Amino acid sequence: MNYKLVARITGFTLLIEAAAMLLPLIVSLLYKESPIPFLVSILIICAAAVGPVTLLRPRQEFFAREGFFTVGLIWVLFGVFGALPFRLSGEPQFASFVDCFFETISGFTTTGATILTDIERLPHGLLFWRSFTHWLGGMGVLILTAALLPMLGISSNFLIRAESPGPVKSKLVPRASQSSKILYGIYLALTAAEAVILRIVGMDWFDAVTHAFANAGTGGFSTRNASIAAFNSPAIEMVCTLFMLLFSINFAVYFLVITGKARQALKSDELRFFLGMVAIATAVIAWNLRDYYGSIWECLRYAVFQVATVVSTTGFVSADFDLWPELSKVILVVLMFVGACAGSTGGGMKCSRILVLYRSAKREVRSIVHPRAVEVVRLDGAPLSERTLQTTQSYFIINIFLVFSMAMVVGLDNFSFGTTLTAVVTCINNVGPGLEAVGPTCNFSALSALSKLVLSFAMVLGRLEMYPILVLFSRSAWRRS
Amino acid sequence: MNYKLVARITGFTLLIEAAAMLLPLIVSLLYKESPIPFLVSILIICAAAVGPVTLLRPRQEFFAREGFFTVGLIWVLFGVFGALPFRLSGEPQFASFVDCFFETISGFTTTGATILTDIERLPHGLLFWRSFTHWLGGMGVLILTAALLPMLGISSNFLIRAESPGPVKSKLVPRASQSSKILYGIYLALTAAEAVILRIVGMDWFDAVTHAFANAGTGGFSTRNASIAAFNSPAIEMVCTLFMLLFSINFAVYFLVITGKARQALKSDELRFFLGMVAIATAVIAWNLRDYYGSIWECLRYAVFQVATVVSTTGFVSADFDLWPELSKVILVVLMFVGACAGSTGGGMKCSRILVLYRSAKREVRSIVHPRAVEVVRLDGAPLSERTLQTTQSYFIINIFLVFSMAMVVGLDNFSFGTTLTAVVTCINNVGPGLEAVGPTCNFSALSALSKLVLSFAMVLGRLEMYPILVLFSRSAWRRS
Repeated sequence: MNYKLVARITGFTLLIEAAAMLLPLIVSLLYKESPIPFLVSILIICAAAVGPVTLLRPRQEFFAREGFFTVGLIWVLFGVFGALPFRLSGEPQFASFVDCFFETISGFTTTGATILTDIERLPHGLLFWRSFTHWLGGMGVLILTAALLPMLGISSNFLIRAESPGPVKSKLVPRASQSSKILYGIYLALTAAEAVILRIVGMDWFDAVTHAFANAGTGGFSTRNASIAAFNSPAIEMVCTLFMLLFSINFAVYFLVITGKARQALKSDELRFFLGMVAIATAVIAWNLRDYYGSIWECLRYAVFQVATVVSTTGFVSADFDLWPELSKVILVVLMFVGACAGSTGGGMKCSRILVLYRSAKREVRSIVHPRAVEVVRLDGAPLSERTLQTTQSYFIINIFLVFSMAMVVGLDNFSFGTTLTAVVTCINNVGPGLEAVGPTCNFSALSALSKLVLSFAMVLGRLEMYPILVLFSRSAWRRS
Repeated sequence: MNYKLVARITGFTLLIEAAAMLLPLIVSLLYKESPIPFLVSILIICAAAVGPVTLLRPRQEFFAREGFFTVGLIWVLFGVFGALPFRLSGEPQFASFVDCFFETISGFTTTGATILTDIERLPHGLLFWRSFTHWLGGMGVLILTAALLPMLGISSNFLIRAESPGPVKSKLVPRASQSSKILYGIYLALTAAEAVILRIVGMDWFDAVTHAFANAGTGGFSTRNASIAAFNSPAIEMVCTLFMLLFSINFAVYFLVITGKARQALKSDELRFFLGMVAIATAVIAWNLRDYYGSIWECLRYAVFQVATVVSTTGFVSADFDLWPELSKVILVVLMFVGACAGSTGGGMKCSRILVLYRSAKREVRSIVHPRAVEVVRLDGAPLSERTLQTTQSYFIINIFLVFSMAMVVGLDNFSFGTTLTAVVTCINNVGPGLEAVGPTCNFSALSALSKLVLSFAMVLGRLEMYPILVLFSRSAWRRS
């Protein structure tokens, strides 16, 4: 293991985190709040990072192993250091460091599960930082790093491979750092567009920007206790719904649209699956809600918002869906597992994986009748290798295994079965709210410190699509080859 | 499709069902109850079956497709005709035919989920028939048929293949009908042994025989409202625990023991996994129950019984585990999914499948670090083909897909999330009780007719290990090749 280089990259990334804290620091000053929590945090991070960054002449050998280890390390340290402003704020809701860590990891992983019982009490600086972690985490802390790493003369391919979401990797343009810049450009443009539109439909600038951050990262932290429901504005809900769906789509689609290949973009199997699923889920839930709201339009309004918020794994709330009929709840839990499209900022297992699994399951059934027929599973017309199928199938199986394993730990807290299971499901899929005691109007504060740590782990696992973290627990990763 | 032959085999199998009803008929007479429900049922079945059975000279062509179709058809008809005695009994709890069908399918699939709210009201004949369906279903209605089919000059290999449980098929002896006879011999001997021992430790003969039937088939119907808890006897619980575990083990192990190859039997990976899992689950649950019962022995007594009843997918109850702490409940739900060993009468996904999935998941993680290493997954030292791995992985994935799909339908009844999900989990894995409103002291009577039909379907799906039934829904099964 090339520890020197790992330390140097990690230190460099932490400096980016410190730099990111300048923004909430400025916000604090603007609102005449104390900038001390951010100032001290920045100083601590710089003190910790300055040594590793100035390490001289590390060897340039950087293999997959180093990549996974660095990614795991950076995510944990981002949680620890990012929690400092919360802890240093003196806010009683942040009295426990585990709570601060949970909130920060929930932010960076774009989960949006919170331990806060009264969000509106927080100063603007902290609220801004909370939402900003979503935005930073949304595109991947490391894609950002990777975009900047060439400045240090380090190739970033292994980092990207360890962090980028989706079962099938495709690069937009040959050089990773260039891809990152294009992705960030799209991301920035969409976020800015949303902030402006939210301002126009009635939010003030602070709410517009913070909600645009949370939406772009498909995170879900709001500045209000009641989340989006607090604004009670169909226009705001519609804008959020639209952007939650936009941020759930593979960014490569936008790249194709920009470069004049819109027709090719629309042929994507995953995109069609995603849009079809959203339409069907919305229709069924709206039907299921027919006795709950006054008109069909109201049913549709609440249904499409919750479908978008769950499938994009954002976790904004416009209605307490824990009070909805059970069919709707089961559908929402299923959507939590499915999640958004690969290559988007959304979480979950990703639509393309579910589509591939569905197709290989169908093939499996067919092969019983025609055991000697050789059939390939295709995505977008291209045949997938058996290797890819196995990786995808294992992904699903490991996810379910982990959900139940972690549910055992959360079970120690003795909440209901629905609470226990959906707490894990919502965290590992980076959604935010679950059902019952961790439902949309509740929060995670009542859970034990152990559960919060396990759920933080679940969030990182889910955000990094599991394998990079699981590798660190595999003996063979540490054996000399 | 060779409909003539399908009809002939189906008719023949229904005659076996009619013959099986002679036993509860005799029981009715012994207890001076009305034999009319059984008499009429037998006559109806004979009238329906006599035509198909006497069909002359069907072609002997019998392929996989015919096999799956026959199996599906027979299970549905067994449910319909087996429900007749319940429906004809005049018992108010059996006023709805869907309820009678559910109860019968629950019996034959060895699930043990019941719609009865007061079991003890039923006459002895009906109670006997209920338990006897478990016993008949336990070894597979069709293995019985297959053992007898050669009398009609029909090869039974395709039938066995369509029904026999377990991911890896192994025949004890080359001829299927001979295998069946050996398996039935072991089954009969163990059942008789249990009945005698239950009589010795305090049950009357009627209870001893019916509970031995329910236990041997890993079904779970009891003659008492409170199930095994009604006897309040540690000795009876211990006997049941022992036999539930014995009936969860691959019968091939007994065959090896009988033929003097005990050492080879003990080397089975699946057996070790199964016993290890039972031991660990018992220990953890007993620890988790430490504040619930008076002594460590009582904790162990209730823990081991519930672990055995769930892992064997029997579903007897000695304590209301729905009141237990959440960790214990999550463990029990996980054990429902895992189930017993392949080649036993138990249900669930089977230990060998879970073991294979675990090993291939581990390989998957390792392959990330060493992408070019070629590694095979082994069971009992023998390498498994990639094809077997894919089938096993698809099995798990389809199971989870189906659980959530069917939970959507059950969700229409608007019970809690825990009830909705575990109702499906307990039925598709043929366990019996779930959690909350379908928990160990409750029953399935409150569910809608639609849910009961869907859950009946789940039970048959689970009992036949899904593929044979799913094939019937595949277009390619019906296309001419």
